[in-house]
Amino acid sequence: MQYTEILKKLHNTDNEYRYLERAAAVLQWDQEVNLPPDGVEERAEQLALLEGIAHGRLTEPATGLLLAEAGSTEINPRGDENLPPLERDFLRVMRRRYDRAVKLPPDFVSTSARAEGLSQAAWADARQNNDFSAFLPHLKTMIGIARKKAEYWRTGSTVKDALPLYDELLDVYEPGMGETEISALFAELGERLSALLKRISACAAPDTSFLRQTFDTDRQAAFSGKLTDYLGFDRRRGRLDVSAHPFTATLGSHDIRITTRYFPDNLLSGLFSVIHETGHAMYEAGFPQELHGTCLADGASMAVHESQSRFWENVIGRSRSFWEGLFPVLRNYFPGQFAGVNAEQFYRAVNEVKPSLIRVDADEVSYSLHIILRFELERRLISGDLEPERLPSVWREKTKEYFGLDINDLSLRPDADGVLQDIHWSMGAFGYFPSYVLGNLYGLQYMKKLRKDIPELENIVAAGKFNRIHDWLRDTIWCRGCRLEPSELLNEITGEKLQAGPFLDYIEGKYGELYQP
Amino acid sequence: MQYTEILKKLHNTDNEYRYLERAAAVLQWDQEVNLPPDGVEERAEQLALLEGIAHGRLTEPATGLLLAEAGSTEINPRGDENLPPLERDFLRVMRRRYDRAVKLPPDFVSTSARAEGLSQAAWADARQNNDFSAFLPHLKTMIGIARKKAEYWRTGSTVKDALPLYDELLDVYEPGMGETEISALFAELGERLSALLKRISACAAPDTSFLRQTFDTDRQAAFSGKLTDYLGFDRRRGRLDVSAHPFTATLGSHDIRITTRYFPDNLLSGLFSVIHETGHAMYEAGFPQELHGTCLADGASMAVHESQSRFWENVIGRSRSFWEGLFPVLRNYFPGQFAGVNAEQFYRAVNEVKPSLIRVDADEVSYSLHIILRFELERRLISGDLEPERLPSVWREKTKEYFGLDINDLSLRPDADGVLQDIHWSMGAFGYFPSYVLGNLYGLQYMKKLRKDIPELENIVAAGKFNRIHDWLRDTIWCRGCRLEPSELLNEITGEKLQAGPFLDYIEGKYGELYQP
Repeated sequence: MQYTEILKKLHNTDNEYRYLERAAAVLQWDQEVNLPPDGVEERAEQLALLEGIAHGRLTEPATGLLLAEAGSTEINPRGDENLPPLERDFLRVMRRRYDRAVKLPPDFVSTSARAEGLSQAAWADARQNNDFSAFLPHLKTMIGIARKKAEYWRTGSTVKDALPLYDELLDVYEPGMGETEISALFAELGERLSALLKRISACAAPDTSFLRQTFDTDRQAAFSGKLTDYLGFDRRRGRLDVSAHPFTATLGSHDIRITTRYFPDNLLSGLFSVIHETGHAMYEAGFPQELHGTCLADGASMAVHESQSRFWENVIGRSRSFWEGLFPVLRNYFPGQFAGVNAEQFYRAVNEVKPSLIRVDADEVSYSLHIILRFELERRLISGDLEPERLPSVWREKTKEYFGLDINDLSLRPDADGVLQDIHWSMGAFGYFPSYVLGNLYGLQYMKKLRKDIPELENIVAAGKFNRIHDWLRDTIWCRGCRLEPSELLNEITGEKLQAGPFLDYIEGKYGELYQP
Repeated sequence: MQYTEILKKLHNTDNEYRYLERAAAVLQWDQEVNLPPDGVEERAEQLALLEGIAHGRLTEPATGLLLAEAGSTEINPRGDENLPPLERDFLRVMRRRYDRAVKLPPDFVSTSARAEGLSQAAWADARQNNDFSAFLPHLKTMIGIARKKAEYWRTGSTVKDALPLYDELLDVYEPGMGETEISALFAELGERLSALLKRISACAAPDTSFLRQTFDTDRQAAFSGKLTDYLGFDRRRGRLDVSAHPFTATLGSHDIRITTRYFPDNLLSGLFSVIHETGHAMYEAGFPQELHGTCLADGASMAVHESQSRFWENVIGRSRSFWEGLFPVLRNYFPGQFAGVNAEQFYRAVNEVKPSLIRVDADEVSYSLHIILRFELERRLISGDLEPERLPSVWREKTKEYFGLDINDLSLRPDADGVLQDIHWSMGAFGYFPSYVLGNLYGLQYMKKLRKDIPELENIVAAGKFNRIHDWLRDTIWCRGCRLEPSELLNEITGEKLQAGPFLDYIEGKYGELYQP
């Protein structure tokens, strides 16, 4: 076969695989946003079938042969490195996907998809009813599936036998990152953040009384629509909806959807999750035209994805200049609640540091500790060192250790506000949590460079003129899709390796100014 | 292979085919309800791929072999008629589906699905912009596809060569019904309905001034939710949403969704389309457990489906007793608009006979004439006797002929309010329109029997106690799924053949009382 013919066939496989995955994404999005309660079981069957077909399409024997042929010296005598860069990257990413997928037996893929659908629905019910025991059997199934998957992926590699199984799962979300490396970064973070938390606890807290009022959820939704426009999310290519757990889903190159939730007694929860998800969505919408229709139109990793969402949520969205610009608009939506409140007061209130039970509502200082807690538990769940039955009690102990909080004293719904608060494990997404913190680290390393390139950043943010930030992100990160490994991308932009320093310096600087003894 | 083994494999094919079709239904529903504008093109690709895969699954060579084996005297020596009835009916319906599907080449199926997606989106835009010429190229494509499809289906049958191609398309929606038979029924209807319209035009019109007010669409939506509950639609197994064109879609055995639209200046449009779609949805939700998970859980035909929706919309929903019960509730939602209006006045207003341009808002007397108009045009589009370019002008002439209305005088948007008003042709659903009128006829033949079985029907309807009607429909129609042909079903219930008399008697009786010279 001619080289161009091989490439054409591989592109066709890539295309059909993506369409099938996105069809499945439509069904999943619909499940979270719309599905009537009694529709859950059949939806799981539909998804299992679709996932099985998608997997089968990617792993057809022909795909393996085509990839081998494309790499043979006969067809491609000068080696991949001499191909046009787009083709070279396409082949690398296709190989990686194929190699991962082909190691999983088709039955396993369908069974996992079915179990995942049912587990997610069971988690949502269990959380609603504050009943960990109802979710436990599903959790065990999901742990079993994750372990089995890791074992399949490990097959054939003797080098990896010494490494924890958990590394295989991490590799899905953050290629090249292992438990050991993460532990080292997390140790440094844990130490400095705990010390900072302690210092802050001795300082006076900001006034947050005006947030402890009722905020009509329809008004919140109206403001959120405005907010996504303000940030630059294009609703000709996306939507904002409501679901139990905020998320972003790509249903098509021009169909990128975010969800949030609104609580009348917690304005900030909905508001910051909208900013967070908009960060994800702008990344997905920002891949260049030349990558559309190929597997290269994807995030470099989940941590790089979180670097985008958490950059917008925190570095921009919790900055003084951001609220200088936007608070007057927000106040117009809630004139009663914010009578007599100014932007500086609001800025201080949204940056209140106050350890609490819920990760997604956590302040920037304690957030990483929530992740460290989950990382420690999930790697033990995967290694088999922690019995799932013991999760609620270990969760309680760790919450005490990291935050000095007793979950049973603080919550009438300790399962719902504890071990059941996150959707991730119910989806089998073990190894995802570290991405949030790694995303923080990436984000602040990028930020150093961004500040250098755009010295007047604060003015731009205050004016809500985000175009120049979009352009910078597009030119450095979005344009790359997943053509570079996360570490290569970081190195290209900053010349550095991943490190905790810039993030910790930012946190200590910002909160040192906000909290003075 | 053992007979039970064959049956198991065929059930597996049936199952997977249905899941794929329903996954496609999720994507289609989402397209109508949620899809961001720029997502249209890729969604068409996703649907094309899914439809192709579904078609491929059903028409695998193995399916043909299994169906042949199941029918062979070696495997099944006593013939289909001696099988357990459920198996016999399952095999019959599977054969029918397979025979239809296998005649269509896979490429044709994908190409058609893609064209359909784009055509529907183009139709929605063209209607919005009142621009028939923007839709024309898509319409031509859809006519071409419909003709081609009819030709494929005709392949191998010499008997049918003398019949119009259009009969092949009709057969999808109403098995066993041909253009000739429909023409005869429609001639009788056209004559008596036109005469009645003429008589009515000489009578005094009811007071409808209270309907010509503004009705807040959020209040309409709230009432519509109440209305679906009142009628007996179970929202644990379904939803009510908003789309440009009202429809019902089955996304799973326990996931049946209806849509409507709300106009602030037209309360009745949204209201009666909700009742109509609820009629469809209750039929879909009413198939018995024993048929779930088989191809037998389906409507007997589109006309039988319309017999359900139009029975609820008109025979029940426009009856005096219905509004005796429900009008006080509706008045509570719009106390200002309905101050001083009573149930009898509302009943008379919703039954105002007033020929207009829009089919879905038509009164019961003129409705069938709208269908006859479309039937006459679409069969000529399919035979090639009418050039699609001429549609707007022929539409105008026919509107004048049937209703005495000049579309260009009455509407500022003559394309949108004329030839572009319905979605059907944009989806390639030629042959569907007659189902609405045939549904009226079925519905009134059933009604005669229902009245005999439940003499106190009016009291039940006035009290909103629809359980006994549901039970009757379940025991006679819903329980059968598509196990019987429509004519067999009618004969089983009424002992009659399809006829226009009962419907015409009902219309003449009802409107004779309402309109007296």
